Amino acid sequence: MNCVLFFSVGAFLVVAHEDKILRSIPRFSPHRSRVRSTEVNRNPNVAPLKSDYTYRTLYFDQKIDHFGFAQDKTFKNRYLLADQFWNRNGGPIFFYTGNEGDIEWFCKNTGFMWDIAPQFNAMLVFAEHRYYGKSMPFGSDSYKNSSVLNFLSSEQALADFTELISFIKATIPGASKSPVVAFGGSYGGMLSAWFRIKYPNIVVGSLAASAPIWQFKDITPCNAFNDVASATWARVSETCVSNANKGYSTLEEVGANAAGLKFISSTFHLCDPLTSMADVKSFKSFLSDMYVDFAEVDYPYPASFLADLPAWPVKEACKSLLSPLSGKPLLEALAKVTNLYFNYTGAAKCVDWKGEGSTASLGYLGWNYQSCTEMVMPMCSNGTGMFYNMDWDFQAFSDDCFKQFGVRPRQDWVKHQYWGTDLSAASNIIFSNGDLDPWSSGGVTEYISESVVSILIKEGAHHLDLRASNQGDTSYVREARTREINIIKEWLELTP
Amino acid sequence: MNCVLFFSVGAFLVVAHEDKILRSIPRFSPHRSRVRSTEVNRNPNVAPLKSDYTYRTLYFDQKIDHFGFAQDKTFKNRYLLADQFWNRNGGPIFFYTGNEGDIEWFCKNTGFMWDIAPQFNAMLVFAEHRYYGKSMPFGSDSYKNSSVLNFLSSEQALADFTELISFIKATIPGASKSPVVAFGGSYGGMLSAWFRIKYPNIVVGSLAASAPIWQFKDITPCNAFNDVASATWARVSETCVSNANKGYSTLEEVGANAAGLKFISSTFHLCDPLTSMADVKSFKSFLSDMYVDFAEVDYPYPASFLADLPAWPVKEACKSLLSPLSGKPLLEALAKVTNLYFNYTGAAKCVDWKGEGSTASLGYLGWNYQSCTEMVMPMCSNGTGMFYNMDWDFQAFSDDCFKQFGVRPRQDWVKHQYWGTDLSAASNIIFSNGDLDPWSSGGVTEYISESVVSILIKEGAHHLDLRASNQGDTSYVREARTREINIIKEWLELTP
Repeated sequence: MNCVLFFSVGAFLVVAHEDKILRSIPRFSPHRSRVRSTEVNRNPNVAPLKSDYTYRTLYFDQKIDHFGFAQDKTFKNRYLLADQFWNRNGGPIFFYTGNEGDIEWFCKNTGFMWDIAPQFNAMLVFAEHRYYGKSMPFGSDSYKNSSVLNFLSSEQALADFTELISFIKATIPGASKSPVVAFGGSYGGMLSAWFRIKYPNIVVGSLAASAPIWQFKDITPCNAFNDVASATWARVSETCVSNANKGYSTLEEVGANAAGLKFISSTFHLCDPLTSMADVKSFKSFLSDMYVDFAEVDYPYPASFLADLPAWPVKEACKSLLSPLSGKPLLEALAKVTNLYFNYTGAAKCVDWKGEGSTASLGYLGWNYQSCTEMVMPMCSNGTGMFYNMDWDFQAFSDDCFKQFGVRPRQDWVKHQYWGTDLSAASNIIFSNGDLDPWSSGGVTEYISESVVSILIKEGAHHLDLRASNQGDTSYVREARTREINIIKEWLELTP
Repeated sequence: MNCVLFFSVGAFLVVAHEDKILRSIPRFSPHRSRVRSTEVNRNPNVAPLKSDYTYRTLYFDQKIDHFGFAQDKTFKNRYLLADQFWNRNGGPIFFYTGNEGDIEWFCKNTGFMWDIAPQFNAMLVFAEHRYYGKSMPFGSDSYKNSSVLNFLSSEQALADFTELISFIKATIPGASKSPVVAFGGSYGGMLSAWFRIKYPNIVVGSLAASAPIWQFKDITPCNAFNDVASATWARVSETCVSNANKGYSTLEEVGANAAGLKFISSTFHLCDPLTSMADVKSFKSFLSDMYVDFAEVDYPYPASFLADLPAWPVKEACKSLLSPLSGKPLLEALAKVTNLYFNYTGAAKCVDWKGEGSTASLGYLGWNYQSCTEMVMPMCSNGTGMFYNMDWDFQAFSDDCFKQFGVRPRQDWVKHQYWGTDLSAASNIIFSNGDLDPWSSGGVTEYISESVVSILIKEGAHHLDLRASNQGDTSYVREARTREINIIKEWLELTP
């Protein structure tokens, strides 16, 4: 298990410009644990992952380039296979379309597939996305330069899934006639939707959970994402929101002198003390990211999805911010929120707000690269809610990408390639979204057609429905899962 | 106008193996004019192309690589645009998905689009396929090696079409809401079908004429193509077929000595006399290709599609072979057939059976490359009908490809990428085929669904329906066109 990736799927890139603009690449999950500790304590309230999640780890020789022939070499594409529930006489294959990270992590955090495999007599396959985990096209050189990174794209990943499924069907006795259903959450959910869109010959249908396939230029306003995050906090208390927003100016006021910087650093238990106004700006960004992360993982039960947290963490965090605050008391209250997120288990010595640097993990770097090529998701804020004012400056973004990777983003391509909002020709896709999840802003939450179904899960955070069933589950997520199961059954029944 | 390409879209590759196996890459059209003459006379019976085929020639800056970001350069992609019939207030765009050749040639030979543009108030756009005509990604170096050829593929071409249409819609006032219908014949027809399959957000429907999207491994038997060609001849006379078949052994018998070789060379008016049994084998292949070509262009009126020919050329050719023949009289009769095909206008000094060599034209070379990568269409014959025994040897084919281009074909990829026979998720495609056309063997000629329609045109040759209306047209092709027009109207009416 790659522990760095475990906590850092997604990406975070802070780039200091000449004009000191700080920006972050949108990401699906918290940037990193931000905890420096001697040991990582498990959240004692979280049930351990079920011991019957047993699978075989396998590798498939995948073409490095599916769309060109000059590069004919292959790499070892990792996948996990569990066939203990599978009925060889027609049982389906449930196929997880791996995200930007180690596939073992997604396998263990997608309990829904494990929960329903027995009733469907399904084989489970979890395919790792190229350039993540152990699926490195050029081994340790895979991130060396833009030339080797050239084959990191969603199109190549979908082609990988296509070839892997074709291989499984051709080689596993009994599998040739097994219908395949795609599952995915977050970027993996985008891939599962796009998989059905582009390769309906390979998958009979897709469950795309919390898949922001519309978080792109000219489709979703750049402030929508942050607006949902703010709304998630505002459900608990508007005061909570106004306190958080006030926190940014308070940080700048208090941090305007050396004593203030010291106060902030010690109040928030920062591993690296703030030493300048630039640090204050970075720290503002750090806090704003944390508010998003809280909303993303606002699960109804204690969970360790991306941080160890109690049930309903936003509500828990808000407790410190229920009355109007200002000055140092406000910062002390915000420090409690930060401590909740980054040190709920009490194992942290300090809060590692500077993190490990953007190049420390291939997980980050990979998503940064993808964000700098196809996955350009404009993000901004008008300064209301939980966030300070942040503009979206595509040119500056593009320049950063060129500086870091030698590539330029193509912000219209995903829309052209994957049909944008014109899903009239699509079929057999479930788009599920939780209304607490900031990513629902770019999700498909409107009626498309009888076979492209949108399920909005009330009080649902980021792909809550894909998680293992839990005693703390709301009736809303239980209903969503039941509906999903019934729709999947229909797909399978209609398959010849 | 590139006159070489004019007569040589498609490809012909003769490779002499150590074991003297001669094979040809399947092609959509005759290999070349095979005529050495001082001037090319027009067939006096063929009406000239209509003078109102007027269009503007334009160029669009197209990304060389749509699927990777390391190569960010662009090239000038040629397209032809005619808007004299177009209604800017909602008139549709009829978009020809260019084939393996100079786009002007397809523009002028796709009269159907010109014929129906006025009644639809349509804009016509003919997009040139990259690496053909004047759309060379690396200029005169575009065919230099496998590294520059790497971006020649159907996927890149479809992405080109997508980007070109997006550009037209974004920049031509009134075009943004114009629904786009794709048209194509032969490989262009495959592209138009695949375009709707992969990009239904870009085109509301496609007319795929004579598009052998099933001429691939494990879908269509390798002998099916030649069987249709034989059947086209057999409709005129079985004796004709048996004479042609007997011709191969007769050629070998007569050509077994120097006098016989001389007899054949002079009887067939060969520019390059036969000098060996290897030459005889090549010449057999030349004849067998010609029989296919006759069937492909067996139009009901005099035409100059790929050769200048009279109406119903197969029937005309058969006239020399109606009684059982053998020995030299048989060869003399076959020479008349050859003369009909290659010298109907009387302009030829001799028959250029050795042609210009496989590298003389980029048109050939491009299709050879595509056949050596994605477009692997297995061809064989069991020795019956118009053909001698020809095996399909994928390994030998692959080895040839590697020798010529440094690439290896991937014979399953097209099937995975473009859904093979599983078109259940497809919509709004017309697959039209002529029953005389050898390529109908790999076409979609069965019922798929209400919106994926197959039209089989009785007495129809290669994409007859796409040609301009002609007084000699059969009622069958007229009916087919009426049906096509009505279906296209339905697509447009249903577009919001």
